[in-house]
Amino acid sequence: MTHPFDAAIELAPQGEHRFQGATSPAYANLVGPFGGATAATLLNAVLQHPQRQGDPVSLTVNFAAPVADGLFEIEARPLRTNRSTQHWLVQLTQQGQVAISATAVLAVRRSTWSTHEARAPHGLPAPETLAAQPTAGRPAWVGRYDMRFVEGGMPEVFDGVEQDHARSLLWVRDEPPRPLDFASLTAICDSFFPRIFIRRRAITPIGTVSLTIYFHADGELLAAQGAGYLQASARALNYRHGYFDQSAELWSEQGQLLASTHQLVYFRE
Amino acid sequence: MTHPFDAAIELAPQGEHRFQGATSPAYANLVGPFGGATAATLLNAVLQHPQRQGDPVSLTVNFAAPVADGLFEIEARPLRTNRSTQHWLVQLTQQGQVAISATAVLAVRRSTWSTHEARAPHGLPAPETLAAQPTAGRPAWVGRYDMRFVEGGMPEVFDGVEQDHARSLLWVRDEPPRPLDFASLTAICDSFFPRIFIRRRAITPIGTVSLTIYFHADGELLAAQGAGYLQASARALNYRHGYFDQSAELWSEQGQLLASTHQLVYFRE
Repeated sequence: MTHPFDAAIELAPQGEHRFQGATSPAYANLVGPFGGATAATLLNAVLQHPQRQGDPVSLTVNFAAPVADGLFEIEARPLRTNRSTQHWLVQLTQQGQVAISATAVLAVRRSTWSTHEARAPHGLPAPETLAAQPTAGRPAWVGRYDMRFVEGGMPEVFDGVEQDHARSLLWVRDEPPRPLDFASLTAICDSFFPRIFIRRRAITPIGTVSLTIYFHADGELLAAQGAGYLQASARALNYRHGYFDQSAELWSEQGQLLASTHQLVYFRE
Repeated sequence: MTHPFDAAIELAPQGEHRFQGATSPAYANLVGPFGGATAATLLNAVLQHPQRQGDPVSLTVNFAAPVADGLFEIEARPLRTNRSTQHWLVQLTQQGQVAISATAVLAVRRSTWSTHEARAPHGLPAPETLAAQPTAGRPAWVGRYDMRFVEGGMPEVFDGVEQDHARSLLWVRDEPPRPLDFASLTAICDSFFPRIFIRRRAITPIGTVSLTIYFHADGELLAAQGAGYLQASARALNYRHGYFDQSAELWSEQGQLLASTHQLVYFRE
């Protein structure tokens, strides 16, 4: 049986550089699709492009307009192919208007000296010992992830009592479980609830305007993850005059950094 | 007299969406121009475009190929203009080949609830009490910045003794001093030495592949900075198989976050 994520990011080639896709009710947000699924679909156009060379190392997705439920077109075009890197421009259009633009850098990676500077969260309780984030009454996409929060889950009450910070610490995986790959890791990078909801304990209209992902894992390391839980941490730096940022890291169960991600989010009020 | 930075980012309009510029010896790197000056020049094409609406909130620059010293063309095209946001695609070409691509999000910002989560470095010694980073024998662009390190300056010896971390803490401003604006803030965001040089105390071939900047400051807050020093902090998360990331924040002297920036850097060996 096809996993709902694979169905959501499926694309039909429409001639050179062009693909057709459709939003998936399984990944619906309050309005339109979950941005993480959309970002993964744009990356998927690159991943399945016949001219693809290497694996993603960097992806930036700019959300220029709401994506309407239904069909969309994606154009993925290599801007420059070097010996070991490849630069892509990807655009999602509906009715001939750009709704999303993205750039991706792919690379053929080689073994080098490697080390880490940041460390995975220390001593997290096992995911099985933590309650799953409730999904009832939430947009469909929330139910496509199994999130087990140690800290900073979605508030249970929205009483407007401002909190000191909006840090989260959690385990997360696809629901139902699915072996990790670049597309699913991309979507998970956008699965962190807007920090402003946690900080303010209030729901305000928000929308991600730009999302960047750095893939620290290559294909081999990702394939070794299987369908297990990832450790995740997220936080914000600043909220000012309609925009805030948030950053997050995703780690393997063994503590290897798989991806780091940053986004800038619009908010009202 | 024109400040060397203004000369470096100067563009001559060449018809709709097109500009011509040239690399500046004052911002030369070891090979080709300093990436920060190039990033600022791409943003400058948007800033001086007649269709510009609002101020930058987000910028991503992908360095696809080395920029050769001399002339280049920039195309800056609005992909989508909404009521309060505008999405841009910018490309720098030489001999008809894309060397740099960028996307920018501009916004008309309004006053909202605002707060910070990260705080500026606490109790830094005044810049006047710290030694300026030496610039002799370094690429020209290093001399265009006055950097006063509290921690994590460029190593004085490259003995290959691996360090525990690559954090930096410093004051930085243009040299000679110049009132801060979006273009100069962009360049300063790329002025943090490659973390791997600090971590390994060794020089290895490196190149930024993707740079993202979030502008927390609007035009008014930037204009209030004048030509003073900014507080800055930088660090890396991970180095693996040819790529590492680094992140940095730039704060006003009064402790307001002006920009946060992230980049992914290629390295060899």
